[in-house]
Amino acid sequence: MPPTAVLLLTCPDRTGVVAAVADFVWRHGGNIVHAEQHTDDVDGVFFQRVEFELEGFTFGRDDLERAFWPVAERFDMEVIVRFSDDRPRLALLASRAPHCLVDLLSRWKAGDLPAEVAVVASNHPDHAGLADFYGVPYHHLPIGDDPVTQEVALADLLQRERIDRVVLARYMRIIPPAVVERYPHRIINIHHSFLPAFVGAQPYRQAHERGVKVIGATAHFVTEDLDEGPIIDQDVVRVSHRDSVEDLARKGRDLEVVVLARAVRADLGHRVLPWGNRTVVFD
Amino acid sequence: MPPTAVLLLTCPDRTGVVAAVADFVWRHGGNIVHAEQHTDDVDGVFFQRVEFELEGFTFGRDDLERAFWPVAERFDMEVIVRFSDDRPRLALLASRAPHCLVDLLSRWKAGDLPAEVAVVASNHPDHAGLADFYGVPYHHLPIGDDPVTQEVALADLLQRERIDRVVLARYMRIIPPAVVERYPHRIINIHHSFLPAFVGAQPYRQAHERGVKVIGATAHFVTEDLDEGPIIDQDVVRVSHRDSVEDLARKGRDLEVVVLARAVRADLGHRVLPWGNRTVVFD
Amino acid sequence: MPPTAVLLLTCPDRTGVVAAVADFVWRHGGNIVHAEQHTDDVDGVFFQRVEFELEGFTFGRDDLERAFWPVAERFDMEVIVRFSDDRPRLALLASRAPHCLVDLLSRWKAGDLPAEVAVVASNHPDHAGLADFYGVPYHHLPIGDDPVTQEVALADLLQRERIDRVVLARYMRIIPPAVVERYPHRIINIHHSFLPAFVGAQPYRQAHERGVKVIGATAHFVTEDLDEGPIIDQDVVRVSHRDSVEDLARKGRDLEVVVLARAVRADLGHRVLPWGNRTVVFD
Amino acid sequence: MPPTAVLLLTCPDRTGVVAAVADFVWRHGGNIVHAEQHTDDVDGVFFQRVEFELEGFTFGRDDLERAFWPVAERFDMEVIVRFSDDRPRLALLASRAPHCLVDLLSRWKAGDLPAEVAVVASNHPDHAGLADFYGVPYHHLPIGDDPVTQEVALADLLQRERIDRVVLARYMRIIPPAVVERYPHRIINIHHSFLPAFVGAQPYRQAHERGVKVIGATAHFVTEDLDEGPIIDQDVVRVSHRDSVEDLARKGRDLEVVVLARAVRADLGHRVLPWGNRTVVFD
Repeated sequence: MPPTAVLLLTCPDRTGVVAAVADFVWRHGGNIVHAEQHTDDVDGVFFQRVEFELEGFTFGRDDLERAFWPVAERFDMEVIVRFSDDRPRLALLASRAPHCLVDLLSRWKAGDLPAEVAVVASNHPDHAGLADFYGVPYHHLPIGDDPVTQEVALADLLQRERIDRVVLARYMRIIPPAVVERYPHRIINIHHSFLPAFVGAQPYRQAHERGVKVIGATAHFVTEDLDEGPIIDQDVVRVSHRDSVEDLARKGRDLEVVVLARAVRADLGHRVLPWGNRTVVFD
Repeated sequence: MPPTAVLLLTCPDRTGVVAAVADFVWRHGGNIVHAEQHTDDVDGVFFQRVEFELEGFTFGRDDLERAFWPVAERFDMEVIVRFSDDRPRLALLASRAPHCLVDLLSRWKAGDLPAEVAVVASNHPDHAGLADFYGVPYHHLPIGDDPVTQEVALADLLQRERIDRVVLARYMRIIPPAVVERYPHRIINIHHSFLPAFVGAQPYRQAHERGVKVIGATAHFVTEDLDEGPIIDQDVVRVSHRDSVEDLARKGRDLEVVVLARAVRADLGHRVLPWGNRTVVFD
Repeated sequence: MPPTAVLLLTCPDRTGVVAAVADFVWRHGGNIVHAEQHTDDVDGVFFQRVEFELEGFTFGRDDLERAFWPVAERFDMEVIVRFSDDRPRLALLASRAPHCLVDLLSRWKAGDLPAEVAVVASNHPDHAGLADFYGVPYHHLPIGDDPVTQEVALADLLQRERIDRVVLARYMRIIPPAVVERYPHRIINIHHSFLPAFVGAQPYRQAHERGVKVIGATAHFVTEDLDEGPIIDQDVVRVSHRDSVEDLARKGRDLEVVVLARAVRADLGHRVLPWGNRTVVFD
Repeated sequence: MPPTAVLLLTCPDRTGVVAAVADFVWRHGGNIVHAEQHTDDVDGVFFQRVEFELEGFTFGRDDLERAFWPVAERFDMEVIVRFSDDRPRLALLASRAPHCLVDLLSRWKAGDLPAEVAVVASNHPDHAGLADFYGVPYHHLPIGDDPVTQEVALADLLQRERIDRVVLARYMRIIPPAVVERYPHRIINIHHSFLPAFVGAQPYRQAHERGVKVIGATAHFVTEDLDEGPIIDQDVVRVSHRDSVEDLARKGRDLEVVVLARAVRADLGHRVLPWGNRTVVFD
């Protein structure tokens, strides 16, 4: 497929936005291949994702944002420009449990994740062989006497490796605020419950004690407020009284894998627009 | 909400379609509130649903289609024009089982179905009281010695009552070809299996004999080929070896009710575009 | 089907329970048609549901519990005895929204609920015609200046009508503690969220604000702690950024109907065993 | 957990079976930890799974079946005896697509599959590195000029390695009848559709052409009739007009992985009882 540009637009809902954007693309020789929009009637906000072929388009990649400026200014837009052949550098972080890590690396190798997995890091040494098998450098960042040392090492690693996006593939440590701040809407976490139920530690144990009949998993952007960031995707599975805490954890793992992968793919496909504490996820 | 117009467009995929449509609406004072599109890459077909506010729009309802003609002609479009305050006249047909009928009438009374339920008809007398409770005329069309007589009576009823759309709410008789022909993509049926599995009679019995672990329901447009029309919506529920044929039928009823109602709502909301034997259903 | 007896047994987990119960039934001429059990390994508790044909059984219905006493005493059992042809007297309570009420009455009329719907009551007059259509007495219990008066009227009604079980079919008032106390594990409520998320008022609004990607419904026994009683059944449906609060409410209604009906059927089928704040629901 | 014995019993439905089995176990010092049963009312067949602790049981493992013989004979039972610490030798077969293979090996390494993965075999050389990473011998069985040669090589491999069970983890070749015959209900396949819909080749393409709104995956025992064996598990996921054949295949892979793993775990946990063309799968 020939490369495309993607405009992710957010602005106050006003007459003529759709026409103005379509006109801009068409007038400069672009062919729109996808255009989705959404209007939040309560907040009066307009969201749009426009994807068009770059071939034949008047402006080069570097000039696109500047060229679009008059339209953006007229409608008071926030604009994100992406390209379908972007290959952001990913860091995958995990703790002990390997299932999300195995899944993401395997999908990446199969060509399902349009990105460069640049680093796998963990507070445990366990996954060195796995990373090696997939040809990705592995960084063991042990928690020593002072957790801050580890957090600094993590921040350094991300900077040194010029990481664009971070995926917390069942990484059970707090991400230092300085890192969160440097990666706004660039860190995706998988939480093993259907948020907002069961925030915090041991959600499967909490779920078992409450006697729920469905359990879930939630992929969300990481913000300063733990388990409170914008939700990208969620899914659930039925359980019953027969399921022990271990059964819930095992069934939950299958959810975590799929929900995290879907969220990462949506984000890499430039289909996620955060808005306050929510997200617009175009299909 | 102020009334809107909806354009449902189908045409060969060509550069500039999105811009031309948006430009047409904007230039004549319309404000686009929803615009979804889809491109079938295999067939090279472009589908669009554009909804815009009529207030301030240059053309009246009767002139809209003619005014749009130049755009339609330029891109070789099939055009369907609808209005958000259309109230098509519905006929609901049922046989013995009342669940879909009860559900649709109850939703309609609650204001959830933007339509006029003009007629309830059945080959059984059973639902007269129900129709009466909801204030809808009931027509008992018994199958006598000659089924053709009943088919003619049905065709007459639909014509006499100026019916726009027909919903087969578990109506277990064949719809005569003449009626099917007069209502292209205007008759919706609910089949009690996840088509194309278990076409024909007694799908729950077939499902039980095959030992499936999920059962389903399918809402589709009725065409000449029984159970072969374009699918509008489907859903499934898990079952197990513990479920008898009667259990499957009971669990299936809950599916049938919801799937049929979703399909009817999608169609009444002008969100369904048939294409060959498939449908584009905009969310 | 010939009538059966159902024993619902709870006791400390000990060797020989299964054999003792099976032996008791068999020795007295009963034929076991279903026998399910569950052991909670954490709490060391054993649950069993045993259903056997009464035909040919030595003891009559009134003598069964006493005859079983030696077994119960030996294993320190709590015993509930039910019969498949029990027809408990139900009261259905609703506020404004009719969907759960319509559904339960319609299922009952179709023979799907083995019970006697003795009363429909509401704090609104709206459903009188509906109750009348299904041949059930309707009681309008308006909230006047003093809510306590209404609560007393409700308690009186339940007593006067010798109600065995109460179903809160979207009844939005607090049930007075005295009534809750008189009906332990005999009042089922439908809450319009996947508990424990979004307890309290306006769960769909809360869900919209949190930006969740699934919404749910929860049927639970009513206890003194609002929204905290043992969960009987739950289910969810996917939603997206496109769904307004009203859309969530509409999609949620389809869940509420099905989840409440499943819970009521499970309970009427003698398949629900409460244990602390959880339930064992035999399939 | 101490080791347990599992009896999987099938017999004509007769009074006293449950009591006789429970009595047998209890009289010889066994403690029943799980007992599930199912009666097929149509065929008049009784199924039971009884699991009891071996500690304190009178008979050793080798004598158990013989000791149970009088009970089995009295009720005309088919009896399968298993032990919770059985570790059957598995062969995993795959063609090009690695996803099911990666998943099963990863689960096995995590301790989630109670078996010995003795062999990975494929008609392609692709997975040698993966098998090596998980420490399992890899056998490349190329399809040469004569397919029969490869089939013979496969049969030899299974025999030589004393394989107990075979898992077709997206193995796209026919299993030779001689192998099917040697492994009755011992070969599990994953088919990438919700059977019986879309048997045969390219089910995702068939699904796309039919325009279905859900796709599925089916795990089943392999019999002589392709895609017709007893179904062990199925699951589905919603799709839409936006999904190309490739999208269906990608979404389907997530289903295939989970459905196959669930089926294999159910079988290894001695919870699957085939009956004709159906299965009883105890939870």
